[in-house]
Amino acid sequence: MTSMESDKCWQECMDVAVQIARRAGQMVREAVKQEKRVSTKSTPADLVTEADRQVEEVIISTLRERFPSHRFIGEESSAAGEKCILTDSPTWIIDPIDGTCNFVHSFPMVAVSIGFAVRKELEFGVIYHCFEETLYTARKGHGAFCNGLRLQVSKEKDVSKALILTEIGAKRDPKTLKIFSGNIEKFLSAPTHGLRIIGSSTLSLCYIATGAANAYYQYGLHCWDIAAAAVIIREAGGVVIDTSGPLDLMSRRVIAAGTQEIASFIVQQLEPISYERDDHDVGAQSL
Amino acid sequence: MTSMESDKCWQECMDVAVQIARRAGQMVREAVKQEKRVSTKSTPADLVTEADRQVEEVIISTLRERFPSHRFIGEESSAAGEKCILTDSPTWIIDPIDGTCNFVHSFPMVAVSIGFAVRKELEFGVIYHCFEETLYTARKGHGAFCNGLRLQVSKEKDVSKALILTEIGAKRDPKTLKIFSGNIEKFLSAPTHGLRIIGSSTLSLCYIATGAANAYYQYGLHCWDIAAAAVIIREAGGVVIDTSGPLDLMSRRVIAAGTQEIASFIVQQLEPISYERDDHDVGAQSL
Repeated sequence: MTSMESDKCWQECMDVAVQIARRAGQMVREAVKQEKRVSTKSTPADLVTEADRQVEEVIISTLRERFPSHRFIGEESSAAGEKCILTDSPTWIIDPIDGTCNFVHSFPMVAVSIGFAVRKELEFGVIYHCFEETLYTARKGHGAFCNGLRLQVSKEKDVSKALILTEIGAKRDPKTLKIFSGNIEKFLSAPTHGLRIIGSSTLSLCYIATGAANAYYQYGLHCWDIAAAAVIIREAGGVVIDTSGPLDLMSRRVIAAGTQEIASFIVQQLEPISYERDDHDVGAQSL
Repeated sequence: MTSMESDKCWQECMDVAVQIARRAGQMVREAVKQEKRVSTKSTPADLVTEADRQVEEVIISTLRERFPSHRFIGEESSAAGEKCILTDSPTWIIDPIDGTCNFVHSFPMVAVSIGFAVRKELEFGVIYHCFEETLYTARKGHGAFCNGLRLQVSKEKDVSKALILTEIGAKRDPKTLKIFSGNIEKFLSAPTHGLRIIGSSTLSLCYIATGAANAYYQYGLHCWDIAAAAVIIREAGGVVIDTSGPLDLMSRRVIAAGTQEIASFIVQQLEPISYERDDHDVGAQSL
């Protein structure tokens, strides 16, 4: 494929991603009104519902029919035992309901996230806020948008004026919680303007892209939480890295920020929490 | 005034509150697009902007013209030195921009809150989510509503299935932060489904009323953060109390929950953080 052919081809993929994200978002809005059948995955705080599985099934089966040679990494397929490995093939990386705990409670911060990588490089990301019905999109080299309006991260470099976002992660053992709350104490006493926990990694990352927050850090998130958002933040002028170098989609660690200065401050301060890699013993994959 | 006359009169007051909350919300939506002139109040994390003062001035001057015999307690008037005392007179309790730090960052969780008390009893509450344009209203004995739809708290009694909300408070000294993060650790290991911090006390309290969360606790909030929301939660079937008994509007402590069972659990677990009362040495006022 020439560069122009692939450009056209990935644009077609992105157009399909936008359609399917909106359709999935509508399914989520309908499902939130129904009784939810909740079960747990890795820990009692790691929830899954029938809706997560159904929405992922609709997204992947639609995409597979349209793009039969592509590969798929989905949150619920991975939980069901499918391997979470990024190859050189065009690969869709999907979180059907990001913020499942919010979804269970009808707490209105829930998103569909669809990322797309080719030769292990992220090409585009689409995130749909199911309740607000806002659509975040970005394609590598083409800018980031929210409902069609161009996004720009905050250029603030002074951490004392920063609003910081994080998420809790599924591990709730005393040692993990001690590190988690110690990190919160550090960032509140830095000082910063404050810290927020909204229960959706992808929407938190979108708020870095819009400039509504200055930094996001998390241990324990997954490749489907980062893939789409990483493109959106970078195209909005921001930084997305691992705590120990370039972004590693499978490392379950991320720091995102509007500026390198604030990202570096977060890296220096954080005490790490260890999680098993998404790709287990397959090896690191820098993106 | 007969009971029927006062009923009609307070309904008229509430209708005016709804109009002025919408108008104030529109001012906030316009102001968020402008450059913000930020300064600090009690601590470097206790922010105020020109918009806070302007919106409060519009709300209070409009209400004072219409109801010249009424009294007013407003966040910015109190910061400017006006006494924060609840008497038997009809009293409006106003937060022009709840979530000022969010407002400064254009983080989309900002509300206008207008509560109304007569003979020290809360009669109605109106809260307007400026970005979502959703209106929460309740009048004592007449139910709670969001955009006209009746609200009902969650009836969940099992804390292990609870979503808990809190806010940070303005004090950021090491001792306070240690207690704050210790409380978070306790609630995450209870276990519960999780914990959220959205940066707006009044909107957090509205999420208790809608059933999207099961409990809210905070030390360091003010009477203008609780007044309107307390009516909305009670009329949605929920519980609003002080950590040591009935709700005390001036104590700067609150626990709200869908059920008494979850409220009692929160009370038992919390380690207290001390803040100076809103009414200083005027004395306690149970509502």
